[in-house]
Amino acid sequence: MPMFQVPLYEINNRLARFQAMLAQKDIDAAIIRQNTDLYYFTGTVQDAHLIVPAAGAPCFLVRRDVARAEQQSGLRPVVALKSVREVPAKLFECCGTESVARIGLELDVLPAGTFFFYDRKLFEKQQIVDIGTLVRQVRMIKSQWEIEMMRRAGGISQAVTKAVPGILRQGMRETDLCIELEHAARRAGHLGFARVRAFNMEIFFGHVLSGAEAAVSAYCDSPTGGPGVSPAFGQGAGDRIMQEGDLVSVDTMVNHHGYLNDQTRNFGLGSVDDRLKEAYRLSCRLHQWARENVRPGMPAGGVYDSLMSLAAPSPLGAYFMGCGDAKVSFIGHGLGLEVDEFPFIAKGQQMPLAAGMTFALEPKWVMPGIGVAGIENTYLVTDHGLESLNSAAEDLLMLPC
Amino acid sequence: MPMFQVPLYEINNRLARFQAMLAQKDIDAAIIRQNTDLYYFTGTVQDAHLIVPAAGAPCFLVRRDVARAEQQSGLRPVVALKSVREVPAKLFECCGTESVARIGLELDVLPAGTFFFYDRKLFEKQQIVDIGTLVRQVRMIKSQWEIEMMRRAGGISQAVTKAVPGILRQGMRETDLCIELEHAARRAGHLGFARVRAFNMEIFFGHVLSGAEAAVSAYCDSPTGGPGVSPAFGQGAGDRIMQEGDLVSVDTMVNHHGYLNDQTRNFGLGSVDDRLKEAYRLSCRLHQWARENVRPGMPAGGVYDSLMSLAAPSPLGAYFMGCGDAKVSFIGHGLGLEVDEFPFIAKGQQMPLAAGMTFALEPKWVMPGIGVAGIENTYLVTDHGLESLNSAAEDLLMLPC
Repeated sequence: MPMFQVPLYEINNRLARFQAMLAQKDIDAAIIRQNTDLYYFTGTVQDAHLIVPAAGAPCFLVRRDVARAEQQSGLRPVVALKSVREVPAKLFECCGTESVARIGLELDVLPAGTFFFYDRKLFEKQQIVDIGTLVRQVRMIKSQWEIEMMRRAGGISQAVTKAVPGILRQGMRETDLCIELEHAARRAGHLGFARVRAFNMEIFFGHVLSGAEAAVSAYCDSPTGGPGVSPAFGQGAGDRIMQEGDLVSVDTMVNHHGYLNDQTRNFGLGSVDDRLKEAYRLSCRLHQWARENVRPGMPAGGVYDSLMSLAAPSPLGAYFMGCGDAKVSFIGHGLGLEVDEFPFIAKGQQMPLAAGMTFALEPKWVMPGIGVAGIENTYLVTDHGLESLNSAAEDLLMLPC
Repeated sequence: MPMFQVPLYEINNRLARFQAMLAQKDIDAAIIRQNTDLYYFTGTVQDAHLIVPAAGAPCFLVRRDVARAEQQSGLRPVVALKSVREVPAKLFECCGTESVARIGLELDVLPAGTFFFYDRKLFEKQQIVDIGTLVRQVRMIKSQWEIEMMRRAGGISQAVTKAVPGILRQGMRETDLCIELEHAARRAGHLGFARVRAFNMEIFFGHVLSGAEAAVSAYCDSPTGGPGVSPAFGQGAGDRIMQEGDLVSVDTMVNHHGYLNDQTRNFGLGSVDDRLKEAYRLSCRLHQWARENVRPGMPAGGVYDSLMSLAAPSPLGAYFMGCGDAKVSFIGHGLGLEVDEFPFIAKGQQMPLAAGMTFALEPKWVMPGIGVAGIENTYLVTDHGLESLNSAAEDLLMLPC
């Protein structure tokens, strides 16, 4: 099997788009430090600084591991860095001048203490500005190659869906179903974890939830919460024993070479409450509307408003996207290399959708005392609407008890 | 099964020790924001701010989820927070005065952008100082209850060790062995992930490595690296097919209610190179020396120096803790709720060891072209030496091909 590599033309395109943004914002150079962004702009994750001048060739400074960086990344030169104290000299060299006024750092993710070091010790004379938003703007438009990676991640989700009927049984603990599905995902190529950008936001595999207790809310910024099996991680599957009449919601996040797929499918154990079946049907209807009607140019908040107004007239409207204080103000979130990318299909979001954006859409109903229902796909915005990157069937699969 | 809860006396002891430190450093109040620290000081992970005044009762401000916070934490009162903008008023109320001069935040983990918001929008008139080190100092001394949690995590590691002989076969891919061991760990109670404090440091389950390629170095700050199966996560098990003559190193990180256990065991597939067997024996000898000789009061760097001088005379000395540029300058790292806690058994570390500290000790040899060998235990510092929290046998287990 040939070694997997992010193509060099991808890297070059990404860097060119980013450099145009830097120039427009009068930022002389950016320093990329965070693992996800390093992977995006170099094709490898190393203990490294990537210097990106507003114009001219970038310089990839690697403390560890230089040989691995050269093997995995097409970017040249890879320059060995002994100490972070060498960064200013290398940056000035890369920019061709010491008259560098504004330097961009990922201040949305870089710890404050690390920022102080760069600001006070390395770049005392320069102004440091945040480039977190710019990086996210470059990353939000996916290339054909990236879309193919995300489609393959969707194939892993399909393998998970197909594994459910052979595993899910009445009398089984939620968490045991979740563990077996993780195993199925790993065997299908899932890397085992998902990167998140926001501070304190944690995700592990997903939310496998069942029955009335599925509607338990949690700290995570997600329509579903779930009990979890420990207060150390109070979200997702719990110790509950699944029973006849349960609707089981299988929400999973899988990773193919860094690229994510987020999917939810619903399964019924025997005869399921009509309100859950109705919520499932409403969810399918909102997906269908979005696939047919969403277009580039629409503001993300406008899509949110339309979906909200479609969901409101139903007698279940009060339960859409959570209940009471735990209601969230989004129906979808961008994703790619991280779980929380642009765009957010959320209240008030002005960002116009564009072809090449990808987001997970998860119209769900959370009904205390009854349960949760609704499916989720990862979509690509095309000129003609939304295209699902999920190949798994969308049926409410009724399983025998 | 009764709900698992961190006992209230634990929470109260931790807060009292932390408050004494705040008073000593003239910090009027601390705001705890990060998930791990919130779990440590409240017993639950919520979208919350914990206000800890230098004296008097703390105040637990929870945006989401208040009901879950009340259910999981013994701390009272739990105060509902609608917006982060209410934090200053609540903090002044908690301190009993608006003349608050110095406020502590976890600046080692809080993103720079978030710090700016607190500094410029919420607490313009106050000085904000870093309390990351103080929190880590409180957390580094484990209570009897915490030690019991970590011992139970060691039980999960034992289950992983016991699963190896039934799974490991010649002709199997490293990553497939790793996937099956993850599955065994999850079934034995492992939460599935491990929290890390340092920026950009990532860990997923561990490093399952075999044969000569095991000695491949990587970006992670660890004696072993490993190829990984993707440049998106270039560490740990790779696609290599395991063969007769391999020494297989199984380094795993498991999580019991947030508390970690780090363990490495070695397995031989048929007849293994004598140098690997010698490295394994040397590792056992260093463990034995540490168990018998390490005492509270010794500086962590002194323990490092002693182990280094014991390892140096061997013909394999050049390969101890990595080779060439990839050599690391530590032999052990504290752990508990995070992978990278105090103390570090590392070059130059002045910190004196104290009873109740816990750290993983991993004397390993990394021999390019040959492989890696060496075992690892999580130890508790007692008045009489080190006590292993790992119950798994330490033998080099030779498996038939």
